[in-house]
Amino acid sequence: MSYPELQKLVDALRARPVITDIGERRRAFDAFATTFPPAADVTVETLELGGVMAERSRTPGDDAAGAILYVHGGGYVFGSLDSHRHVVTEIGRAAGVPGYALHYRLAPEHPFPAPVEDTVAAYRALLAQGIAPGRIALAGDSAGGGLVVAALVAFREAGLPQPACGWSISPWIDLEALGPSMTGNAASDPSVQRDPILELARLYLAGADPRSPLAAPLYADLKGIAPLLIQVGAIETLLDDAVRLAGRAAAAGVPTRLDVWPEMPHVWHLFHPVLTAGRKAIEQGGAFVKAAMQDGAPFTYRG
Amino acid sequence: MSYPELQKLVDALRARPVITDIGERRRAFDAFATTFPPAADVTVETLELGGVMAERSRTPGDDAAGAILYVHGGGYVFGSLDSHRHVVTEIGRAAGVPGYALHYRLAPEHPFPAPVEDTVAAYRALLAQGIAPGRIALAGDSAGGGLVVAALVAFREAGLPQPACGWSISPWIDLEALGPSMTGNAASDPSVQRDPILELARLYLAGADPRSPLAAPLYADLKGIAPLLIQVGAIETLLDDAVRLAGRAAAAGVPTRLDVWPEMPHVWHLFHPVLTAGRKAIEQGGAFVKAAMQDGAPFTYRG
Repeated sequence: MSYPELQKLVDALRARPVITDIGERRRAFDAFATTFPPAADVTVETLELGGVMAERSRTPGDDAAGAILYVHGGGYVFGSLDSHRHVVTEIGRAAGVPGYALHYRLAPEHPFPAPVEDTVAAYRALLAQGIAPGRIALAGDSAGGGLVVAALVAFREAGLPQPACGWSISPWIDLEALGPSMTGNAASDPSVQRDPILELARLYLAGADPRSPLAAPLYADLKGIAPLLIQVGAIETLLDDAVRLAGRAAAAGVPTRLDVWPEMPHVWHLFHPVLTAGRKAIEQGGAFVKAAMQDGAPFTYRG
Repeated sequence: MSYPELQKLVDALRARPVITDIGERRRAFDAFATTFPPAADVTVETLELGGVMAERSRTPGDDAAGAILYVHGGGYVFGSLDSHRHVVTEIGRAAGVPGYALHYRLAPEHPFPAPVEDTVAAYRALLAQGIAPGRIALAGDSAGGGLVVAALVAFREAGLPQPACGWSISPWIDLEALGPSMTGNAASDPSVQRDPILELARLYLAGADPRSPLAAPLYADLKGIAPLLIQVGAIETLLDDAVRLAGRAAAAGVPTRLDVWPEMPHVWHLFHPVLTAGRKAIEQGGAFVKAAMQDGAPFTYRG
């Protein structure tokens, strides 16, 4: 580690107690995050999007003709509007549009494909409000980073137009944890390990094939989906989920940008109030979204 | 193809006659490129860098305290100062520093490791001139894109400081052509095919192991090398060289950005006078270089 704020954070992540009770772990995730209240200039209101509870956040000067729809991480079992409010609100600010945090249904109560269905329903609702698809971005982290990709595929399969872009942060796309980094980075990653993540996959799948394309988009046909920004930390066990996603997207002709951040742990954006790299990664993602909304592609080659 | 200028270009690439004589093919490459003269505001002078012939180009307002060292493509057999002058001069402009195009020795007259040795010698010469390593970028395309990576490894092995960053355009890093895209994109790629590239590898290696790390940096230990920008076109047979390079760099903890440009052919930067995407890719690479020189890393997380 090259500077103290990062070392302190990684040490704190390592020192967290192992919690096995699902309810207790959900509360711990929310409690951690609520130590980071949204900035003073953010306004938040709850609403429904296609029958799914959601929260819309506004920041000064944002453009309500656009939207960034955010699906949080937590292995499809944890996470909530509370756990990611400080992230979604700042992501909206960085993208210059309102942030829509989605309270999609969680496993084990609601296994696959409930989160995919909820994301499609929410996207349909944004379109029904008259927001142009080219002014919508879909973003998420970890399980939500995989859900971004699954949902883009589901949009295509439903005959819906693609949004401006997808933004996948430390995505989880392989529910069998077969990436070499799952073992290669086991010692360096303070957050995600093979056995616990396989247990989350078991709860999410509830008996479904672990290679179902909309559960494990490593196995999805990505042809025609929106341009992707993939951000991942180099010390993550999920590093190869991100690298393999980039490879799959590239092979399908999807405009793709993969950014590998040295030294960063899983979804370091969560720690942006105490970690400069978290703020920088959010800023860069916001810039990608803005470019996609303005030019129609982050790799602009027309004109 | 989604717009006419690209289709026209790809058709023209497909229509090129197959030339088997090396001297004739060198002349054809140079002749093609010299139809694109450098911009009127560019000045060019020849010089020697560590005993290697080179060319320095200046653009208005550039900062001579920095440098971008460029190693051209052409399979280690073709290419010259002439073939890439219109690219190197604009890359220098985009990066805001003088461009140093290197006339490294070519196979078959000078096989591996001559180009690596020449690049190391040139880098040493820039350092000896008093240019700080953090103000130097190393860039190249195709074989030169692989040479960028090999040279960064060679710098490390020689105990030299790393430059600010490396910029690999459509890199060739696998001299056995084992990437799935070598066959998967064979129909879409108008420039690079398996048998001809294996023949170039044979000339370059002149009997050396095709997995020599400094000839095929897919097999190099990349730990500690400078941050990398990798740009590749989605229709290239070499797509998986770029994707695998990103994966190897990521696993070694190298700050890495991979950009996959939809629809683009091999080293589309060469066509920037007639292709907007070529200009845009050069601009984006220049911005990456500037960020690396200013902040010490494109993924800035300090301060």
